Amino acid sequence: MSQRKLRVGMVGGGGPANFFGGPHRRAILMDNTAELTAGALRSNPEESIASAKDLHFTRGYGDWKGMVEAEAKLAIGDRIDYVTIVTPNDAHFGPADLAAAHGIGVLCEKPLTTTLDEARRLQKTVEATGTPFVVAYTYTGFPMVMLAKTLVADGAIGEVRKVEAWYPQGWLANNLEQSGQKQAAWRVNPLKAGASGCGGDIGTHAYEFVRFVAGVGATRVQARLKSFVAGRALDDDFTAFAELENGGIATIAASQITIGLQNDNGFRIAGTKGTLEWSITDHNNLKHYQGGQPLKIYRLGAEYDYFPASIKPYIRVPSGHPEGFHEALANLHLTLQLTIRTKLGEQVPTPFAHPGIADGVAGMAFIEAAVASSKAEGEWTKVG
Amino acid sequence: MSQRKLRVGMVGGGGPANFFGGPHRRAILMDNTAELTAGALRSNPEESIASAKDLHFTRGYGDWKGMVEAEAKLAIGDRIDYVTIVTPNDAHFGPADLAAAHGIGVLCEKPLTTTLDEARRLQKTVEATGTPFVVAYTYTGFPMVMLAKTLVADGAIGEVRKVEAWYPQGWLANNLEQSGQKQAAWRVNPLKAGASGCGGDIGTHAYEFVRFVAGVGATRVQARLKSFVAGRALDDDFTAFAELENGGIATIAASQITIGLQNDNGFRIAGTKGTLEWSITDHNNLKHYQGGQPLKIYRLGAEYDYFPASIKPYIRVPSGHPEGFHEALANLHLTLQLTIRTKLGEQVPTPFAHPGIADGVAGMAFIEAAVASSKAEGEWTKVG
Amino acid sequence: MSQRKLRVGMVGGGGPANFFGGPHRRAILMDNTAELTAGALRSNPEESIASAKDLHFTRGYGDWKGMVEAEAKLAIGDRIDYVTIVTPNDAHFGPADLAAAHGIGVLCEKPLTTTLDEARRLQKTVEATGTPFVVAYTYTGFPMVMLAKTLVADGAIGEVRKVEAWYPQGWLANNLEQSGQKQAAWRVNPLKAGASGCGGDIGTHAYEFVRFVAGVGATRVQARLKSFVAGRALDDDFTAFAELENGGIATIAASQITIGLQNDNGFRIAGTKGTLEWSITDHNNLKHYQGGQPLKIYRLGAEYDYFPASIKPYIRVPSGHPEGFHEALANLHLTLQLTIRTKLGEQVPTPFAHPGIADGVAGMAFIEAAVASSKAEGEWTKVG
Amino acid sequence: MSQRKLRVGMVGGGGPANFFGGPHRRAILMDNTAELTAGALRSNPEESIASAKDLHFTRGYGDWKGMVEAEAKLAIGDRIDYVTIVTPNDAHFGPADLAAAHGIGVLCEKPLTTTLDEARRLQKTVEATGTPFVVAYTYTGFPMVMLAKTLVADGAIGEVRKVEAWYPQGWLANNLEQSGQKQAAWRVNPLKAGASGCGGDIGTHAYEFVRFVAGVGATRVQARLKSFVAGRALDDDFTAFAELENGGIATIAASQITIGLQNDNGFRIAGTKGTLEWSITDHNNLKHYQGGQPLKIYRLGAEYDYFPASIKPYIRVPSGHPEGFHEALANLHLTLQLTIRTKLGEQVPTPFAHPGIADGVAGMAFIEAAVASSKAEGEWTKVG
Repeated sequence: MSQRKLRVGMVGGGGPANFFGGPHRRAILMDNTAELTAGALRSNPEESIASAKDLHFTRGYGDWKGMVEAEAKLAIGDRIDYVTIVTPNDAHFGPADLAAAHGIGVLCEKPLTTTLDEARRLQKTVEATGTPFVVAYTYTGFPMVMLAKTLVADGAIGEVRKVEAWYPQGWLANNLEQSGQKQAAWRVNPLKAGASGCGGDIGTHAYEFVRFVAGVGATRVQARLKSFVAGRALDDDFTAFAELENGGIATIAASQITIGLQNDNGFRIAGTKGTLEWSITDHNNLKHYQGGQPLKIYRLGAEYDYFPASIKPYIRVPSGHPEGFHEALANLHLTLQLTIRTKLGEQVPTPFAHPGIADGVAGMAFIEAAVASSKAEGEWTKVG
Repeated sequence: MSQRKLRVGMVGGGGPANFFGGPHRRAILMDNTAELTAGALRSNPEESIASAKDLHFTRGYGDWKGMVEAEAKLAIGDRIDYVTIVTPNDAHFGPADLAAAHGIGVLCEKPLTTTLDEARRLQKTVEATGTPFVVAYTYTGFPMVMLAKTLVADGAIGEVRKVEAWYPQGWLANNLEQSGQKQAAWRVNPLKAGASGCGGDIGTHAYEFVRFVAGVGATRVQARLKSFVAGRALDDDFTAFAELENGGIATIAASQITIGLQNDNGFRIAGTKGTLEWSITDHNNLKHYQGGQPLKIYRLGAEYDYFPASIKPYIRVPSGHPEGFHEALANLHLTLQLTIRTKLGEQVPTPFAHPGIADGVAGMAFIEAAVASSKAEGEWTKVG
Repeated sequence: MSQRKLRVGMVGGGGPANFFGGPHRRAILMDNTAELTAGALRSNPEESIASAKDLHFTRGYGDWKGMVEAEAKLAIGDRIDYVTIVTPNDAHFGPADLAAAHGIGVLCEKPLTTTLDEARRLQKTVEATGTPFVVAYTYTGFPMVMLAKTLVADGAIGEVRKVEAWYPQGWLANNLEQSGQKQAAWRVNPLKAGASGCGGDIGTHAYEFVRFVAGVGATRVQARLKSFVAGRALDDDFTAFAELENGGIATIAASQITIGLQNDNGFRIAGTKGTLEWSITDHNNLKHYQGGQPLKIYRLGAEYDYFPASIKPYIRVPSGHPEGFHEALANLHLTLQLTIRTKLGEQVPTPFAHPGIADGVAGMAFIEAAVASSKAEGEWTKVG
Repeated sequence: MSQRKLRVGMVGGGGPANFFGGPHRRAILMDNTAELTAGALRSNPEESIASAKDLHFTRGYGDWKGMVEAEAKLAIGDRIDYVTIVTPNDAHFGPADLAAAHGIGVLCEKPLTTTLDEARRLQKTVEATGTPFVVAYTYTGFPMVMLAKTLVADGAIGEVRKVEAWYPQGWLANNLEQSGQKQAAWRVNPLKAGASGCGGDIGTHAYEFVRFVAGVGATRVQARLKSFVAGRALDDDFTAFAELENGGIATIAASQITIGLQNDNGFRIAGTKGTLEWSITDHNNLKHYQGGQPLKIYRLGAEYDYFPASIKPYIRVPSGHPEGFHEALANLHLTLQLTIRTKLGEQVPTPFAHPGIADGVAGMAFIEAAVASSKAEGEWTKVG
C-alpha cells in the first residue's frame, strides 16, 4: 500500500511578489503524495537557484530550459514526474511544450497560452507524446462543482438551455499597475497577458464553467471588452453572449472593476427539468432547483453517499470541516497524479475528467473569438 | 390631523384568475389612508359589477369607460382621486389616457403600454393635464432600493461604471399557457402583451433598476430574445447589453425558463468608489462595498438614522419586523397619494421620486430597441 | 360569494408613541374582510375619541368599558364581532374578560396577562362563554412556521428530542426608558409588564415555538433572569432550560441587550429522524435536515403543493413575492375571523390551530415558573 | 532567509479509521515549514512502524514511549522539534507528559486529558520545563476568530456582557457506535473519552470560544448532560449556563443528536457597545453589530488592513480564495512552530496567543464542573 511520492518540478512562483507559487506548493505538499523536487522559480538564474533552496526544493535550476532538459535525462523515479507552471501567461508555452516533448507531465496555469495558435501547437506536442496534462481551472477542483458536472451529465436537470457564468472582482478598479504591484502589472500588459486582460485572467474561468459543468461549448459569441481605467491597454471588464453547441445559450460576465467583490465566481445552469447553481461565496454547497419541489442543497462531506465513486477520492474530511481553495487546487494535482500513476502501472482510483489540453485550447479559442467580436463592435463571431 | 381617505378606482383585477388585483387592494387598504370606491374589475359588465360588490367597492361599473366618465362628473372628495390599472398590457392605455384626460390620478401596471407610440401619446395627455401618475415598478418601492438610489445620487459609490440587473424566473419553463393558466396565456400572446414577452413582463423591471437606482438611461442596446418553449410566439428569455448616457455600461438579464428561481430580481452597481448590491431574496438588506473596508450592510428599520427624511415615511415598523412585497406596492400608492394630497393643498411629506409617466415611456423605448436589436441579430440599436 | 366585512373594535393602539396599533390596523384592513368599527384607543377619554376619528374608526369611545358595553347592546352585524387588544400587559385582562363575558371575540396581545392567576380567571370566562379567542403570538402566523408545525405533527422528524428557541434583541442595551421612550418605559415597569420583562415581552414568543411547533409543553424549568442595565427593575436577559412532556428538552433564550440583533427569533427542533429550523432573518424559507440527504428548503409560495389545504388560505401570493410581519399578524386575525364566521354559520375554510386562550395561559405558567426558578438561584421549578 | 524545516513527530493518527491524523499531516506539510520525521501512529507496534513508512515518515516507531525517548537522545536539528498527539483522549497524557519532560514541544488534541487531575499534572511538567505547548482548539485558528479576539481585547464592543457559544452536530443521533464505527466507539466510551462525551468532544470547543474570544472564564456553572440514545454511557447533548469572571454570563450548547447539523460551531458576544458574531457555516466572515449603524462584515483576505500585524502571518491568500479547516489547523501548528523557532533564536513573527497548557487545564476544569452540576440536578457548581 505504500506509494512513492511523485516528484514535482515548478516553473515560476518563486519571487516575493508571486501569488500562485505558494498555493501550488501547498496543493502539492498537503496530501503527502508528492514532493518539491526541482525548481526554476525566477527569471534571474541566481535568484532562481536561491529561491529553490529557500523553498526546500531538492534541486534548484537557473532556468526552465535547463531544468527540463536535465531532469529528462534522469531515470523515472528520480526525475520529476510532472512540472507545475505558474509563470505569467507568455511564459507558459515554452516550458509546457518542452516538458511535453519529453513526456514529463504538465500542470499549467490558465489561460493555456497567449494565442490560440500557440495553444494548438502545444496541443500537437502533448497529444503526440501522450503526456498527462491538466490546466489549472482551479474552480473545477471544488467537489461541489464536480458534483454539478456529474448531475448534469446524469440528466438531473434535463437538456441544458441556459448557462450563466460570472466572475466579478474589484482589485483593478484603480490603476494599481502604476503603483508597482507586480500581479497587476503583468496582467494589464498585452505582451505578458495576451489579447484580453480580464477575459484571459478570469473570463476564461467563467467560460470553463460552461464547458466543464454544462458540458457544452460555444459555437459563436458576441462580446464587449472594456477598459474603465484610463491608460490601460487591456480590458478590465469582459461580457459575452454565446450560442452553444446544443442550441442553448450562455452569458459569461467577468469584471475587475467591481469594487468590493473579491473573486466571486459561480454559475447557474437551467435545463428543461431543473436548475443547478453554485457560487464560490458558498462553495461547499450546491443548489438544485426542481419545479414545485423544495430546493435541495447538496453539502460537502466525505460521508455523503450522493457523491459518486468518481468524486469520493477528492473529498478529504467529514462534513462541517470546510475545505477551500487549496484543496480545490490540490484536486487538480490529484487528477494529474492519478493519471501519471495509472500510466506508471499503479492501482489508483480513476482520475476525474478535469480540464486537459483540449480544454485549454478551447479556452483560448473563446478568448480570441471574444476579442475579435469586441473589436467588430460586438458582431457575432465564430468560436474556432 | 385627521386626513380624509382618498378614493380609489380600480380597472381590472377582479377575476378569480387575476393575480395583481389582490396585492393592489391590500396595498391600497393597509395604510388606512384610502378606500376602494369604484371598480370596473372584469371585462364582462355583469361580472364586473358583481365583482365590485363582492370586493366591497362602494360603486361597481360595467366597464372602465363608464367608470371614468361617471366619476369625472362627481365633485372632488366624492369622485375617485385616482385609478389603479391592473389589466393585461393591451388594456393599459385606454383607461390611463381617459383618466388622465380628466385629471384623475393614475397608478398603472408596467409595462406602460404595448407600444412606444402609445406610451408617447399617453405621456402627452398626462403632461398636458398635469395628472399625478405612477408606474408600478414595484421593486422601486422597497425602502432599501430607495436607499440605494439615494446613496448613488449622493455620490457614495462615485461615478457609475457598470450596472448589472437581473430577474430570473422559472414559471414559464413549460408550456403552461396551454393548460388554461390565464396569467401565462396573456403574457405569451403578442396581442395582449406587446412585442416582448419576457422583456415586457420582467426585463422592464430590471431595466428600471438601471434608470431608477443608478440614475442613468441606456443610449443603445444589443439584445437577444429567445423562445425556449416550442410554439411560443414571444420570448421567454431576454438578455441585453446597454451603453449608458454617462459612458458606463449595463447588462439586463431576465428569464422565465430558469426552473426554481422564483422572482429573484436584483442589481449590482459598480462605481469608481464602491459598489451597491441588492436582491429581493434578501430584500431588507442593502450591501455597500468599499475598497479595503468591511462590507457594510444597511438593514431595514424605522429607527435607523441612515434613512434620510425622504425615505422615513415609507418605513412602517422598527427593525426586525420584515416588510415585503405588499408594503413595497403600498409605497408606490403612497407616493401617488402624497402627490395628490400635495396638489389638493394638504400638508404632507414630499413624495419620493418613484417612476412616473416619463419612466414608463423610457421603459417602452428600451423594450422596442431590444426587440429591434434582437431581430437584427443583436445589432447595436439606438434607444429612442 | 359576497361576504360581509367583520366589524372590529380596538383597545389601545391610538397614541403617537404606540407601536402595535399600526400593525394590527394594517393586518385588519389588508385583506378587505374586516373594518375598523369601534375604538377605545387611548387612556385619556377625549384623546381616545379624537384618535378613533383620526384613524377612521366608525365609532369612537372614551374607554374600553364603555365601548364593550355599548357594542354588546347592538345587534350582530352592527356590533363589533371582535376586539383587538393592544394595550400594555396590565391592561389586557379587563377588556378581554369583559368582551369574552359578552361573547365578543378577542384577539389579545401577548403575554396574556400579568399574572397566571389573572390568566386562569380569563380562561374561565372565555371557556364558559365559548368566545373565539386568539393570542397574538405573531410568529405563529408565518406560513413556514405553520408548515413546520404540520411537518412535526405528521412525523416528518420522528419523535421530538430537543427544541432550541431564541429571540435576541438589542434595543434595551442602554437605559432607553429614561429617555422618555414610552415603549421602553412600560416594558421595564413591573406594574405594567408583569413579573418578567424580557421573558414576558419576547421569551414568551420563544416558548410558544416549543409548544406550537414542536407540540410539547414544559413540565419543569431552570431559569436565569438577569438585568444588565443598572437600575432596571425587570430582567433584560432571560434564559431557560426546560424538560418537556414527552421526555425531550428545550432551551429558551431571549435577550434585549444583544446590540444590533433586531428581533431575531427562531427555532430548531431535533427529532429522531430529522431536524427543522426556521429564523425570522430568513422567514420565507424552512430548513428540513435529514441524515445523509441533501438539505431540503421549503419556500413560501401559493403555488407549492407541499403546503397542505390547512395552510393554503394563509398564503396570499405566488412564490418570490415576499410576505412578512404584517401578513403573519393578518393570519392571526384571519384565524379569528374564520372561527367567528364558522360560528355565524358561514362556509369558510377551517381555521388553523393558532394559539388560543389555553396557550396564553400556558405562556403565563411558563413565565411564572421561570421567575420562581430564577429567584431560587435556578432551582428546577414545576411549570403549573 | 532560508529556514530549516522543523521536525515533527506524531502519536496516533495512522489507522485507516482515524480521522484527525490526515488533517494534522496536511496542516504540518502544507506550509513547507515542517516535515514528518517520527511516527508512532498505531497501538500495534508492527502496524505502527508500517504505517509510518506508508505515510512517508522518516522514522517509524512501535510506540510513543520508544519514540520520545529515542528522539530525545538526538541532537536538536535532528530530533523532533515537537510532537503532535492525535490519539483518543485517554492517550493524551502519557506522550504529552513525556515529551514535555524532555522539552520536546507538544501540539495536543483536545480535550487535554480525561481528568482535571491529569491535566494539572501535565501542566506542572510543561511549566517546569518551559515546553512550547498548544492545545488543538482548532477553531481558534480561523483568522476571523483571531480577529474577533483582537477586537474584543481592543474594546470594540465595550465590556463583555454575554457570550453564546454553540456546537450542534447530528452524527451520533443513532447508535452508530454499535455498527463498528471506531470514531463513534471511543467517543462514547468513558474509559477512552473521559467523564463527558459531548462536552469533552465538542462542548469544550464552545467553551474555549468564551475564554479565547471573549477573554473571560467561567466561575460557576449549571449544566445538563443528557444521553438520548438508549444504552449510551456518556452524554450526547450538553448544555451549560455559566457566570463569568467579569460579572457577565454565558451559554454553552453542544449536541451530537441534532440530525443534519454538521459541525456548526460559532459564537455571539454581546458587549456594552456592540456585538460580534461568527459561525463556521460562514467562517471567512465576521459580523460586527453596533447600535444604529450598518452591520459591518469583516472578510478574510491577506490584503485587508483591518487585520493587525499579529494576524497577518496567519492569512495565506488574497480575499476571495477561501481558506478553511486545514488552514485553521495549520495556524495552530504555525503558532507552535513560531514559539519553537523563537526559542531557537530565529527571527520570526510573534506567535499569536493560541490556547496553551493553561487553557487546556481550564477546559478540563469546566468539563468536570459541568459533569458535577449535571449529576447534582443542575446545581450551581464552582469551576475549579
